[in-house]
Amino acid sequence: MAERITIIGAGPVGSLLAVFLGRRGMEVDVLERSPDPRVTTVKNDRSICMSVNARGVRALRRAGLAEKIMAMTIPMPGRIVHHAGGKVETQPYGVSPEEALHAVHRTSLNCALLDAAEALPGVRLHFEQEVGAIHFHGGTMESNQKMAPLPRPLFGADGAYSAVRASMMRRAPFNFRQEHLEYGYKDVDVPAGPNGEYQLEPHGLHIWPRHKFMLIALPKPDGSFAAELFMPIEGLSALDTAPKVEAFFREHFPDVFPLHRNLGKDFLAFPVGHLVSTEAFPWNLGGEALLVGDAAHAVVPFFGEGMNCGFEDVHVLDDCIEAHGADWAAVFERFVRLRKPQTDAICAMALENFVEMRDQIEDSDFDIRKSAEHLLEVSFPGRFIGRHGLVAIHGVPYLDARRAGPVLDHVLDAVCQGKTSVDEVDLGFAENLVDEQVAPLVRAMLPRGGAQS
Amino acid sequence: MAERITIIGAGPVGSLLAVFLGRRGMEVDVLERSPDPRVTTVKNDRSICMSVNARGVRALRRAGLAEKIMAMTIPMPGRIVHHAGGKVETQPYGVSPEEALHAVHRTSLNCALLDAAEALPGVRLHFEQEVGAIHFHGGTMESNQKMAPLPRPLFGADGAYSAVRASMMRRAPFNFRQEHLEYGYKDVDVPAGPNGEYQLEPHGLHIWPRHKFMLIALPKPDGSFAAELFMPIEGLSALDTAPKVEAFFREHFPDVFPLHRNLGKDFLAFPVGHLVSTEAFPWNLGGEALLVGDAAHAVVPFFGEGMNCGFEDVHVLDDCIEAHGADWAAVFERFVRLRKPQTDAICAMALENFVEMRDQIEDSDFDIRKSAEHLLEVSFPGRFIGRHGLVAIHGVPYLDARRAGPVLDHVLDAVCQGKTSVDEVDLGFAENLVDEQVAPLVRAMLPRGGAQS
Repeated sequence: MAERITIIGAGPVGSLLAVFLGRRGMEVDVLERSPDPRVTTVKNDRSICMSVNARGVRALRRAGLAEKIMAMTIPMPGRIVHHAGGKVETQPYGVSPEEALHAVHRTSLNCALLDAAEALPGVRLHFEQEVGAIHFHGGTMESNQKMAPLPRPLFGADGAYSAVRASMMRRAPFNFRQEHLEYGYKDVDVPAGPNGEYQLEPHGLHIWPRHKFMLIALPKPDGSFAAELFMPIEGLSALDTAPKVEAFFREHFPDVFPLHRNLGKDFLAFPVGHLVSTEAFPWNLGGEALLVGDAAHAVVPFFGEGMNCGFEDVHVLDDCIEAHGADWAAVFERFVRLRKPQTDAICAMALENFVEMRDQIEDSDFDIRKSAEHLLEVSFPGRFIGRHGLVAIHGVPYLDARRAGPVLDHVLDAVCQGKTSVDEVDLGFAENLVDEQVAPLVRAMLPRGGAQS
Repeated sequence: MAERITIIGAGPVGSLLAVFLGRRGMEVDVLERSPDPRVTTVKNDRSICMSVNARGVRALRRAGLAEKIMAMTIPMPGRIVHHAGGKVETQPYGVSPEEALHAVHRTSLNCALLDAAEALPGVRLHFEQEVGAIHFHGGTMESNQKMAPLPRPLFGADGAYSAVRASMMRRAPFNFRQEHLEYGYKDVDVPAGPNGEYQLEPHGLHIWPRHKFMLIALPKPDGSFAAELFMPIEGLSALDTAPKVEAFFREHFPDVFPLHRNLGKDFLAFPVGHLVSTEAFPWNLGGEALLVGDAAHAVVPFFGEGMNCGFEDVHVLDDCIEAHGADWAAVFERFVRLRKPQTDAICAMALENFVEMRDQIEDSDFDIRKSAEHLLEVSFPGRFIGRHGLVAIHGVPYLDARRAGPVLDHVLDAVCQGKTSVDEVDLGFAENLVDEQVAPLVRAMLPRGGAQS
């Protein structure tokens, strides 16, 4: 095949896309603004961790990389909730330990995917290539401030502030929305102990919910934890001296505070991170260009889905190529049609999750509800699975998980009001909410669906 | 003053801004992508007309240009409505002929403003300068693919698809939305007659409302009319042969059809124009950069406000400079605080107007309501002024006009249901809708306000 494909962005999604295309024998150039993370220590490497979930694993398996990547991860079979009073509660994600999320260091994962892409004969990686304006009409692209003929097809896998999208936006009719939350985050890693040991239980996703803010921590292979404090930007900005930072942690996270050595200094060295949600349509320009991953739909992190969703994007895209070959206009059209409703659903659920978390006035209500949800999942396996379980553990289509929402809420309401079994809850109202096309797991949660399955 | 100010964009808003700044003795560079319209025939010159209204005139007067510009305009003291049945109805905009809109050829207006800007000692115009990526952080700007130090302060007056905004957007937290309507437009000018005479009444804004589509026409000084057909993009695209176009006009606009010579060919030569609405926040980057006009808030044209709103932007900006001098951070902050709620109101009203127009099922209902509105304006001068009158003829703040909306709708509903006088309508419900700060014209429309005034 003489056609050369260009991918802008060599992050996890761009690299995995290169693997998918390379495995099909296609010729692929990948242009990345940053230096090669395999040879250079990345500037401002925030050493962040991501969680790979069922959806991500499925895509990696399709690319033949599941075994290699999963070996780099640390399984987290449940949440470990550190309540404000000091109580620590372990909430398994599923009924078996295999039903887990998997913590992975972002840069390590990216390097492994880059290696896999580069090992394919048709794939070439080009680092420190900053794409500027793309003139779709004139057919030119600016890279490192030089103009070159616009390659075609072009994939924009260049993240939430995508340069490819910025140029697509200037061609009507392209609809777009980007919205920053009033919440931001700071990295506050928990170091390994004196002998390199974990200072917290490594097999779990730690959460310190404090309602107007929260701390989360994921294990890294070196004995440390990647931790992030999410809170209103005003609040983060107000923590502007080391003593203030330390007093804040001592008060709200007394079990984490002693584990740090330079908490105040580290905290202040890291700029406030912003959280953006985006929506774009269309993602393609005929068969010329296509956006994938965060460039197409940046998801706020309150479902842990950003990367997994991006991985599923390229998985679905691979299905579309299977169906249409290199007829890119047909591939892109099918991809957008299949994928847009799904990513709209996860973007909305992630925002809803954020709003739910932010607006909890009564701490105890929120705790009770979360605990009840967990209790239902454990007590009625397969009859009740919360949104997060459906999405992250079972990899149900986002849209189906969202459509199940009212059913889940109704059951939870009933249980919180005293019902003691899922079977006592009248779900008649929900019969028309979920149609025959929905995932079997969701259908099984309905009385009729349960009877049928 | 050693500081050099840079304006990106030399359209009407950018040129008028240059005039305001130049009149204050400031040093100003204006960079424009297109060639100088005064020496080059602009490619794809759509010879469009705009209407200058009370708000625009007020800004031009402040700049000392009202006399010069208004001499170039053709007054339109009212709408001339061509109903589907053939009836032609003249609806004056106000009670005196001075209460008029003023048609002006966009390019002529732009040239006059450029002349005025260039005549000021501190102002320099630079054409064919295409701005690419702006690196606010690194402090560089790309112009014609060369990098230069970023000038400061920088004004983005570069329109709905602003390059300045595209770069600001990539810095968090910048919120943005751009939405294209499912409607588009085509220019279908009505030529002058064989002896250069007007083929329609020149002193009026002609409208052919057909509910799912509409044609409007504004007079030009050369005897022709700038006309635009607004309709769903699907519908415009379906008119893809000259015979189809001609049959369409013959059926729906039988009084216009015979006035054209090459209707089919002209129609097909013009690409479908798109209609975009945008919302951005914040408009400034500290004291470094500020967006004005369409770059800050593109308004759909259903209120005829785009340019007038942009002119008012720079008028208000001039007030802010009066207050804070060249303390740009303070100027920009005050400007955004004063102006954002106002432009949000006109963006919303313009979209509401579009939706109202689009969703009329019953032609007759719409006609009756529009006629009733006009009748009320004429019968109760000062006691009833519709939204358009408040905004375009009286130049009331957009926000006040929008807040008056429910009152106007209530009166209209009552009149359509049989009340014959504004005084018969109980407006008690509205007492709290409009507070003491509102424009006197709006307050006068309320029973209590009327009594007080």
